[in-house]
This record gives sequence, structure tokens and C-alpha cells, in this order.
Amino acid sequence: MTGTRRRPAALFLAVSAACACAPGASAQQAATAATAPAASAPDFARLEAAQNAANDKAGPRSVPGRRIPVPGTVSPEFQATIAAPYRVPAWNANPGSAGEWKALVAKLAAQTAAPLPALRERLGVVSTPEVIGGVRAWIVAPRQVPERNRHRLLVHIHGGGYVYNPGEAGTLEAVLMAAIGGFTVISFDYRMPPDAPFPAAMDDAMAVWRAALGLQRPENMAVFGTSTGGGMTLALMLRAKQEGVPLPAAIAPGTPWSDLTETGDSYKANEWLDNVLVSYDGYLTHAAQLYAAGHDLKDPQLSPIYGDLRGLPPTILTTGTRDLFLSNTVRTHRKLRQAGVEASLQVFEGMSHAQYLFNPDAPETREAFQEIAAFLDRHLGTEAPPP
Amino acid sequence: MTGTRRRPAALFLAVSAACACAPGASAQQAATAATAPAASAPDFARLEAAQNAANDKAGPRSVPGRRIPVPGTVSPEFQATIAAPYRVPAWNANPGSAGEWKALVAKLAAQTAAPLPALRERLGVVSTPEVIGGVRAWIVAPRQVPERNRHRLLVHIHGGGYVYNPGEAGTLEAVLMAAIGGFTVISFDYRMPPDAPFPAAMDDAMAVWRAALGLQRPENMAVFGTSTGGGMTLALMLRAKQEGVPLPAAIAPGTPWSDLTETGDSYKANEWLDNVLVSYDGYLTHAAQLYAAGHDLKDPQLSPIYGDLRGLPPTILTTGTRDLFLSNTVRTHRKLRQAGVEASLQVFEGMSHAQYLFNPDAPETREAFQEIAAFLDRHLGTEAPPP
Repeated sequence: MTGTRRRPAALFLAVSAACACAPGASAQQAATAATAPAASAPDFARLEAAQNAANDKAGPRSVPGRRIPVPGTVSPEFQATIAAPYRVPAWNANPGSAGEWKALVAKLAAQTAAPLPALRERLGVVSTPEVIGGVRAWIVAPRQVPERNRHRLLVHIHGGGYVYNPGEAGTLEAVLMAAIGGFTVISFDYRMPPDAPFPAAMDDAMAVWRAALGLQRPENMAVFGTSTGGGMTLALMLRAKQEGVPLPAAIAPGTPWSDLTETGDSYKANEWLDNVLVSYDGYLTHAAQLYAAGHDLKDPQLSPIYGDLRGLPPTILTTGTRDLFLSNTVRTHRKLRQAGVEASLQVFEGMSHAQYLFNPDAPETREAFQEIAAFLDRHLGTEAPPP
Repeated sequence: MTGTRRRPAALFLAVSAACACAPGASAQQAATAATAPAASAPDFARLEAAQNAANDKAGPRSVPGRRIPVPGTVSPEFQATIAAPYRVPAWNANPGSAGEWKALVAKLAAQTAAPLPALRERLGVVSTPEVIGGVRAWIVAPRQVPERNRHRLLVHIHGGGYVYNPGEAGTLEAVLMAAIGGFTVISFDYRMPPDAPFPAAMDDAMAVWRAALGLQRPENMAVFGTSTGGGMTLALMLRAKQEGVPLPAAIAPGTPWSDLTETGDSYKANEWLDNVLVSYDGYLTHAAQLYAAGHDLKDPQLSPIYGDLRGLPPTILTTGTRDLFLSNTVRTHRKLRQAGVEASLQVFEGMSHAQYLFNPDAPETREAFQEIAAFLDRHLGTEAPPP
């Protein structure tokens, strides 16, 4: 059949009365001209033949180099996020020493933290420094907490590959959740490498969770976080189960780094397409090694996808079609469902890693958080804690 | 920072005591060797620099040509499905006449139908020809219908780009649903182009739905189908709403062709990666024109994503990370949620278009149908119809 491609398709012209074809052009030519992105090969037949030849046997998939347009199926605000250049040097950082790591991390954290006071002000959110379970933290809350959320409390675990977003920089997601969901949130500054590798971050998370249990009923609480914060949310559930500590009523791991072993299809399929993480061989490989510090990356406290997920609370997961962690997220969703856990998945069109955090004014940001907040609202109790 | 890449990272060696590095090799070199697919550029630094340069301004995303490995994160059975070559000539059919279309369609349908009797026998499913609402159909049911499904009925709308799968070939999905879900299913043979373009298929679907309403309570019924069948499922709901006919209790559009205009990110992002549909510029562009026959492709009866989805029944959607219709599916999911509809999304790792239909023995096939069946079971009533 392939030898017959691209000849005038008389049948289509006959049935497609409304086709806006140039005189003498075939319907196929018109369709290609109308839909092909600027940089795709104009000679589809040649590409088709080459691709068929490269994919005529069972095995890896050969995909040609391409320029992929910014989709028109998202808001103008989010189109700008999708169109943005790669995040250099965040995605491909490879500092040669602990000192260089710290300098880079401090620089990026300062950039992230700088707009936060104005953002909080604009969104009507207040942030109060605290120490919770011995860990530096902030209580992030809307100026007016809705009555139904009065006895509810969320614990937020920030992302950043176990290296980025120390200090207040880590509270961005908590600010968005407080503003859009109307919840009171504890966001904490867990220890990170190079100074404090695994399990310091999980020890801090566990200490905060134990302290939170003294503040509200577990059935009124949720834990959430994105990327590393999503992976840590899942690992924290496994650890709480193991230590016999109550679990929260729900969790919301966003695009979780649930597998540190670079296992999963989208690590390759979405490589170079995701404009946030770009490639696992950027900083993530380093960060995983730096954090794990010689521990087995398949340890469920590092890669919770390998843990026993039975008994986890209802879970809502968020990712995007261009996310390097799309596979992490959908694999976690399937594993939770296989373990009998109520688990809901939302996938945003054209979204790279964690981009629902990047643009507070994009309708997609509001939509992602509203969906998560509605899920939590369905699962969290409202009763006051015992006196 | 990029200028400092790939120099020995002393810090990692210091903290990664368990790193299995060759003497003298950096941790990064070891990590790259361990994780890079066979055909990826060995010189990551060169690729990194080229990619950074090609993606340093806002705009389309430049992605290099690659060989993407078969993921190890799915069952061995499903790995074979992912590894399979492109489906030539199904994906890129471009017959030059109505006669050639019919010959190709008949040949492919015969191939699909041939194994069905043995499959039904093996799965304990019986198929009985009927005429329902004036449309040729089959009642497909398990030999023993579970008691809870006794007064339940599903209507199945087959896929195939509005051109493929006439006759019994269209019943494959109904057989799997009857076997795995234990439901009684009506699967019908709607008219298709070149003989019968739009709206013949939808007229047939509506006739069958009206007839089904005479057989069971709507609250005990669901409509489901994959690809074109998923798009038609959604369009049927819009039409039933418009005509004031009761809707079913739930629907299950799998990877629906909900947008015939080639709008959506995965039409480009997953092009050449999906080994089923491969490219929209294969047969789909032709099929859309052939079916629409001059009608506006944005008409919600052709592209239901553009319709008013309020009031649709609870919906479960299924797709895969490599699916050319990933965007169709997630956009439909978001639109349903925005319209206040209960909508659940499942996305399978590494799956191309509709591959949960391709391999009855893959655990992923069973899992996809079990999840859909459980969703329907939660939403469908069980009461007997009025006498």
C-alpha cells in the first residue's frame, strides 16, 4: 500500500465538497499544508518510507528529530509556559563540589523566594515561621480560613530533586494551596545533601508528621507535595505504616519522583520535550546519587513505587502529557489501584514537569489546585480535635 | 554552568560509596553507561549543548531523533505489543477509490474476525446475531451472566476511524467486556463511508440506543467504545440530550477520537512513537474527510470535544502514554470535569492507541477492562425493568 501514497485521492475530492483545496491540489496536500508544523518535513512520503523501514521489526521505536509546536489547546498564559526555553542551569546543573552546589542552590532559591511576599499579599495568604517537630517550618494560611477548613490541616513537602528550594523558596506550592484551596498548610524545610543525605529528609518529614498528629485529627489532615515532595509523600505513608503511626485522610502527590532508578517509559519518550527537567541525565542523575549516598535506589524509602502501597489513603495524582515524570505518575496510579487504593489521576495537556506551580495566573494552575482541593474536601473530616 | 559538564564530580564519588564505577571513571560516566539506551548519543555533552542552543528561545520544542527502548515497566506480554512494528498498511492506508477502500477494509476485517470464534470459546462468551433498531447487531454475553448483571445492558460502539471493522470484526471489544466484566453487550454494525458518510453512523447509533431503552432501564445501562467508538459514545450523549432521550448511567469512551481537526499536543508529540496510528497524516486525515463529507469537522456530532458536556453521565476514560490520542483523552477528561461531570482517567504505561484491545492475554488488557467494569458496576442499577 505504501507505494501508492500521496497520489491524488479522487475519492476525497468527490466527497469533500467543502474542502478548501487549491485548484489542482489533492485533498491530502491541502490537509498537510493546513496542519503540518513549520519545521516538519514537507515530504511526508519520504519520511513515511524511512520511518516504516526503521520500524519494521520488533524492538525499540525509532523517532525522527522534530519541532513540536506550542499547542493551541491550552490558555494563552499556559502557552507561554509551554513555549519557554529550557531552564538552564537548573536542569543540567553539575557542580563539581559541595561549595558549588550550595552556591547554585542558594542562587536559585533566592530567585524563587523573591516574588513570594508579593504573591502572598496578592493572594491573601499569610506565612508564619515556626519550628514543628524540631524542624524549621512555616504555617501558610489564607487570611480568612473557610469555616469547613477550620479544623483541617495540610502538611506540604516541597520539591526540587532533594537539592533545590531550601528555606522559604520551598513554600510556593503551600501558598498556592492555601490561596486556592483555603487550607492551613505546614510547609517545612527538610535537611538536604550535600550536608545531609538520605534519610535526613525523611527523618524530618516523619518528625513533622508526628508533630502534626498532635495538632489535628489525622482524619482531618492530608499530605501533599510535588516531584521530590510527591515521592516523599508516598515514602512517608510507607514509613508511617511501618512505625504504626496514623495516616492522613488523603494525599496529593504531584508528578512524584516515585522511582529514582530512571525506570519508566517517559524518562526516554519525553526526554528533550519536557522543558523543565529536559533529561534525566541532567541534574537528576546527580541528585539521586547525592541524596542516596550509596543506599540502594530501589529502597522504597527512596523509590516508593517499589513499596507495598496497600492501605494508603485516597490519593490524587497530577501530571502533564510532556512531563518527564509522566510514567512515574501513571505507574504510581496503577500500583495504587492494584493495591486497592482509591486513586484519581489528572493529566494536563502539553504540561511539562510540575508546571502547575510555575504560573499562578494560568487558568490551568487554578484548575489543578481546585481539583486537588475538591478531592481533599471530599475526604477530610471537619470535627474539632478532642479538647 | 553548562561549560562545567562531565568533568569528574568528586563530590559524588565521595558520597556514593556503593557506586560501581570503573577505576578512574566519574560517577556520571558510570551512570550514563548504565542508563543510556543503545542508540542514544554517547556524547551527552554535545547533545546537551545542541539542544540548549535549539531551545534557548520561546517557541516550538526542538527534539532530536532517537531510539526509544521498550520499557521494562510493563508485563512481558505487553512489552511485545509495545515492541511491535508499525501496522502497515492499516496506519497509512490511502486507497485511491471507493473500490480500493472497500477491498482493504474487507481484508483487514477478515483478519480481525478470524480469531474471534476461538477467542469467544476460550473466554466463555456467546455471540448471537440480531437486528436492533433496524441495525445489524450482535448480543455478546458471558455464558453465565452474574446475578448482579442480570438486568444490566451495555451498548458497544466499535472503533476503526469510521472506515475499519465492519461486521463481526467490530465485536472484539464487546467480547473482552463480556468476558472480563460479565456484562451482556449489544455491539452493532453501523454504516460507514465511502457508501454512507456522516451522519449515517450516528443515526444508527441513535436508533440502537432508542431500541436499547425498550430493553432495559437507562439507569442499568452504559455505552462504551474505543477510538471512533469513544468519539461516537460522546457524540451520542450530546444527541440524546438534544433529542430529550434518557442517558445511560455511565459511559466508557476509550482513547476517544473526540477531535477530528488534528488539534491537540499528542498528535505531534507522540507522532512516530505510537506504533498503531503512527501519524495523523496516515489514514486518519483521509478517514476524517471521508466520513465528514464536507461537514464542519468542529461540529460536536463529529468532534464532541466542542460540545456542551454538562449533564453527561459519569465517565471513565482510558489511554496510554504513547497514544497519539493522549491529548484527545486528557482534554476530554478536563472538559468533562470543567462541566461538572464525574470523570475518571486511566493512563497505561508505554501504551499506544487502543492497545488494551490488542492482546487478550496481557495483564494490562485485563486490568484496563476490570477497572472499567468496576466503574460501571459502581454506577449501574440492578433493578428489573418494569413488567
